[in-house]
Amino acid sequence: MEVVQVLRMNGGLGETSYATNSLVQRKVISMTKPVTEEAITQVYRSVDTITNSFCIAELGCSSGPNTLVVAAELLSIVHRLSRSHGRQLPEFQIFLNDLPGNDFNSIFHSLLPQFRAQLNREMGSESAPCFVYGVPGSFYGRLFAANSLHFVHSSYSLMWLSKVPEGVEKWNKEEIYIGSRSLEPAINAYYNQFRQDFHTFLKCRSEEVVGGGAMVLTILGRKSDKAASKECCYIWELLALSLKEMVSEGAIEEEKLHSFNIPQYTPSPAEVSRSVEEEGSFSVTRLEASEIRWADCGGGDGGGYDVAKCMRSVAEPLLVKHFGESIIDELFEKYQRILTDRMSKEETKFVNVTVSLIRRG
Amino acid sequence: MEVVQVLRMNGGLGETSYATNSLVQRKVISMTKPVTEEAITQVYRSVDTITNSFCIAELGCSSGPNTLVVAAELLSIVHRLSRSHGRQLPEFQIFLNDLPGNDFNSIFHSLLPQFRAQLNREMGSESAPCFVYGVPGSFYGRLFAANSLHFVHSSYSLMWLSKVPEGVEKWNKEEIYIGSRSLEPAINAYYNQFRQDFHTFLKCRSEEVVGGGAMVLTILGRKSDKAASKECCYIWELLALSLKEMVSEGAIEEEKLHSFNIPQYTPSPAEVSRSVEEEGSFSVTRLEASEIRWADCGGGDGGGYDVAKCMRSVAEPLLVKHFGESIIDELFEKYQRILTDRMSKEETKFVNVTVSLIRRG
Repeated sequence: MEVVQVLRMNGGLGETSYATNSLVQRKVISMTKPVTEEAITQVYRSVDTITNSFCIAELGCSSGPNTLVVAAELLSIVHRLSRSHGRQLPEFQIFLNDLPGNDFNSIFHSLLPQFRAQLNREMGSESAPCFVYGVPGSFYGRLFAANSLHFVHSSYSLMWLSKVPEGVEKWNKEEIYIGSRSLEPAINAYYNQFRQDFHTFLKCRSEEVVGGGAMVLTILGRKSDKAASKECCYIWELLALSLKEMVSEGAIEEEKLHSFNIPQYTPSPAEVSRSVEEEGSFSVTRLEASEIRWADCGGGDGGGYDVAKCMRSVAEPLLVKHFGESIIDELFEKYQRILTDRMSKEETKFVNVTVSLIRRG
Repeated sequence: MEVVQVLRMNGGLGETSYATNSLVQRKVISMTKPVTEEAITQVYRSVDTITNSFCIAELGCSSGPNTLVVAAELLSIVHRLSRSHGRQLPEFQIFLNDLPGNDFNSIFHSLLPQFRAQLNREMGSESAPCFVYGVPGSFYGRLFAANSLHFVHSSYSLMWLSKVPEGVEKWNKEEIYIGSRSLEPAINAYYNQFRQDFHTFLKCRSEEVVGGGAMVLTILGRKSDKAASKECCYIWELLALSLKEMVSEGAIEEEKLHSFNIPQYTPSPAEVSRSVEEEGSFSVTRLEASEIRWADCGGGDGGGYDVAKCMRSVAEPLLVKHFGESIIDELFEKYQRILTDRMSKEETKFVNVTVSLIRRG
């Protein structure tokens, strides 16, 4: 499976779209706002070239209410800083990146006019020129000109791997991600793929980010040292359970389930910082793990229905590619039932790893 | 009517799409290739900053086989120049601009992978990094950071005005563009709108193009001094005739036709160069008028059917907005019949005005 071709959030604005079901991602962006603000302030103070143009990139921008949130924050922070330092406002260049299957038309047609209206409301005639570009492509490759970026933000994107780790099928028949029944070689293959991908990511960005420039990355991860820890695996184990029910009912072939694996890895803070040190171009200024309850998903009652919709908006294209369209509705009904049951009995949370990095000068 | 909201070429890849009906535009790009090549060579030789990154913009890029043609040419020219001068290849940044209603998803999803495959075939491992960005917005406003562009190309876009000239309805009841029955104030209003828009265009680009940078602009225009000359007006007069037939059949209200005007102006070479001089930031290095036969439209027999399809792919959104969807098929059947008749009796041509400009240092 070519992840670049298949991975995307559900498009459009409908019931099952990512745009309608990305509230948890929005909350995570809010939670990490102090880190973002600190990094932007630091960059503004230290990078000379910003007097002309402040260039930022949102990697994995998706197409929904979160696409331009951090860009809007950044503009507001830099406006405030410029006013308090008596410095002229720079021009802004905002590069919105996602895989080519992302719905850029929606961004350009609906979100961007709203964003510009918001800027006008908040900053009025003071507002500096702000240029917005769409950048299709994988962030596991070069995307921007050398030494062109001052600030990079990415939230809930870097846990997606460039591909399902090779050979993992053999050792991970009973799970669709790392889980309690994954064999050791499967867990190692997942981790190695993350290390390799994250190294590539850092290497590419090191060429693009100016010395003193910053990156704030939030990755769906875990606190535990153990990759098979429940905190990061449980959500997928329950989806695997739903798929197994369909196997036992004859709706899905067992072989088909055995060969399905999610191209994701949920790293620990230590794994993230180890990779940063190994690559060597950036230094870590902040490293945090935070939690958000599954119940904070969605705009409804935060129960199983909302969590199932949230996961559907993220995983549907991958599932459709492997199992076909026809199983989806039933699968997510089962998943919802299982989620509702588990959430009533135990505390269930996502863990976010947030790292703030500075490009070594 | 908000031109920014309504004007776009027909999307997708179907029978009536712009992508399928833009052969005449492709031929015009081929015809002006020597001018483009001369300008690129000039820029390559004179602009120092290109050693790092060569930044080009395609304004009015549309979404079809012409979107990346000039970008591919430029890369090939610069590769050749770098080789013959023993200079290192720069990185390339290609900014693809069109109005927000343009189908950027198609560009990113279909055209860009083809473009990258072509580069790999032609240049192989020698190929320099090439970053492609989508830029939604009107070129009658700022689109790019100050002093960031080395080369700007635009073909068959700048005849589109930012709006239908104010008051033109009163003096242009019998035509939908300037025509033999337009009153003098209508013609003046059209020209004044062009002057104002083109001035704004040049002013914006003057902030974005580096000193020594170049622009090659091809505009659907005319050779004659007279704005109501048949060479530029006839194609729209025949569409007006088709609309009038529908009025006489009761399918369209006369009032509705009287209030419809195309937001376009087809300038003469002298008008273009006068505007450039007035604005003052650029100097003209080349100014040419060329011709292309209506019969060169389309991939069929080049008869009325092809020309009608070509015009439909360009004008349909404007017509639908004003008259509604229901008249379109019949309108273009009538138009095809009229075109076929006239093309069998007279030589019919489009005139292109091509101007090559250098940003004064």
